[in-house]
Amino acid sequence: MNLPKTVTICEVGPRDGFQPEKSIIATTAKADIINRVAASGVPVIEIGAFVHPKAVPQMADTDEVARKVAKYPGAQYRALVSNRKGVERAIACGMNWVKLTHSASESHNLSNFNQPIASSVKGFEECLELAKTHGITASAAISVAFGCPFEGKIPLANLEVHIRRLTGYGIREISLSDTTGMGNPVQVYSIASHMVQTFPEVKWILHMHDTRGMALPNILAAMEAGISSFDASFAGLGGCPYAPGASGNIATEDLVHMLHEMGVNTGIDLDLAIENARLAKAIVGHETDSRILKAGKIADLILKKPCGQTKIG
Amino acid sequence: MNLPKTVTICEVGPRDGFQPEKSIIATTAKADIINRVAASGVPVIEIGAFVHPKAVPQMADTDEVARKVAKYPGAQYRALVSNRKGVERAIACGMNWVKLTHSASESHNLSNFNQPIASSVKGFEECLELAKTHGITASAAISVAFGCPFEGKIPLANLEVHIRRLTGYGIREISLSDTTGMGNPVQVYSIASHMVQTFPEVKWILHMHDTRGMALPNILAAMEAGISSFDASFAGLGGCPYAPGASGNIATEDLVHMLHEMGVNTGIDLDLAIENARLAKAIVGHETDSRILKAGKIADLILKKPCGQTKIG
Repeated sequence: MNLPKTVTICEVGPRDGFQPEKSIIATTAKADIINRVAASGVPVIEIGAFVHPKAVPQMADTDEVARKVAKYPGAQYRALVSNRKGVERAIACGMNWVKLTHSASESHNLSNFNQPIASSVKGFEECLELAKTHGITASAAISVAFGCPFEGKIPLANLEVHIRRLTGYGIREISLSDTTGMGNPVQVYSIASHMVQTFPEVKWILHMHDTRGMALPNILAAMEAGISSFDASFAGLGGCPYAPGASGNIATEDLVHMLHEMGVNTGIDLDLAIENARLAKAIVGHETDSRILKAGKIADLILKKPCGQTKIG
Repeated sequence: MNLPKTVTICEVGPRDGFQPEKSIIATTAKADIINRVAASGVPVIEIGAFVHPKAVPQMADTDEVARKVAKYPGAQYRALVSNRKGVERAIACGMNWVKLTHSASESHNLSNFNQPIASSVKGFEECLELAKTHGITASAAISVAFGCPFEGKIPLANLEVHIRRLTGYGIREISLSDTTGMGNPVQVYSIASHMVQTFPEVKWILHMHDTRGMALPNILAAMEAGISSFDASFAGLGGCPYAPGASGNIATEDLVHMLHEMGVNTGIDLDLAIENARLAKAIVGHETDSRILKAGKIADLILKKPCGQTKIG
């Protein structure tokens, strides 16, 4: 298998993982777990979202979180923004990386951002201008890039239109999001290969939800296509309003575990990642779909003595 | 991606799925779900195990199950046997396919079969002779082929010794089992490629547990290596005594869903497979780790109207 030797993981738990939680999580708890994530060796952390507090109440304290977080030398911190006001807030609390987002389909953009794609991207222009003036990085994410719950698969030509627009704005880091867990490995390989070849100037990030169990095979396929940056969420937190009760984002500890087992470097301390996942689970106070939290890592198992239990076959 | 166009799935839920369940499942319920599995288009079903009832009480009624099952023309039925007595029982109730099993490691063979590998395979000889006399097929499975909870990774040379012995006995169908969910995609690809090339006369089957979430990426890697037969268990039933509470076998409906999404044919009706998974879950009376049972299949989602719920990013 032709895989990258090193993978960059971005922890999106503080934003995409906590976002759907109904009970508001204390700002100090958010800042504390972000510090622990940085200390575990995660190189990029999405700490929150500067969006309207009525739209996403859980993210209302992102300004405060950003101020409380200790800036680790090895870690980069980014936040999602939805408009100029969001960029202003990001600048005001010392962030130097914002992520702009729109959907790959009109229906999802209308449903999620209450406006057509054209309006979303029109708004990007002033965001980017402000970001540039203040010397902060702006990356972009395209939601439902591997399938929309209303429109199904997104034609490759449509995706390309979106990407050309973003690169035309000067954006050089783009996340393709499988927001509702609709991608499959053949499709991911095909789209990822095409994008890597067509836009060599772009740093690609994949953001895969494990809604239907395909996040890890999708990430494997994307790695074979040459992508080496992936979002993940501690304990597998996150969710999808179209599949209540289903799995969320791919769990950071599950992804790190698989990558390390395959001999792929992440720079992350797996034991600390597992501790952070346990903490994240305690913070939200409910079960999650992390496999490693339930099974433990392989290395621990091998140290055990035979347990004498019989299981034939 | 270079994948097989068609995959053969063997439903092992009636054996490996039900086996660890503490409450004894009614024989009629077992026969009924086996009939439904056959009706859904599954071409191979492992209906039970002819092993000592004290070792695995849940499998004590396999003879009765075999007699009750309606033999669908498109389906083949196999059962696990552990010795000559098992083959006799299989023959007595009209089975025409038995599966012999030993572990890849001495420690696991001792723990699971209470004897060294040499004794296990010595016993195979009379099993095979009896099977041959009665014109029934004998296949084999090697447990913990991708890692032993006591010994760790199994050297490839050791695996080859086991396989040469089995092929020397005339066995032409061998299952490599990741009994405790310790395989990873790079390793699976490497072993699978090697075996496919070294033993072209063997029909290979992979039996992957999803203990640490790697069953689907492992199956994807094995498909890239040219393997096209996989065991799976309805609702993801099954388990591992070394990781209590962890996920079991890869769920049949999750695997079929991924394969169909990738355009790979299985001959299985996914809707019926999901119904059977629901039934299996009702039979055992507890939650399982099936993703599709929780999230539903992608095709259902696309038919829905926008739900108006906002989830930014």
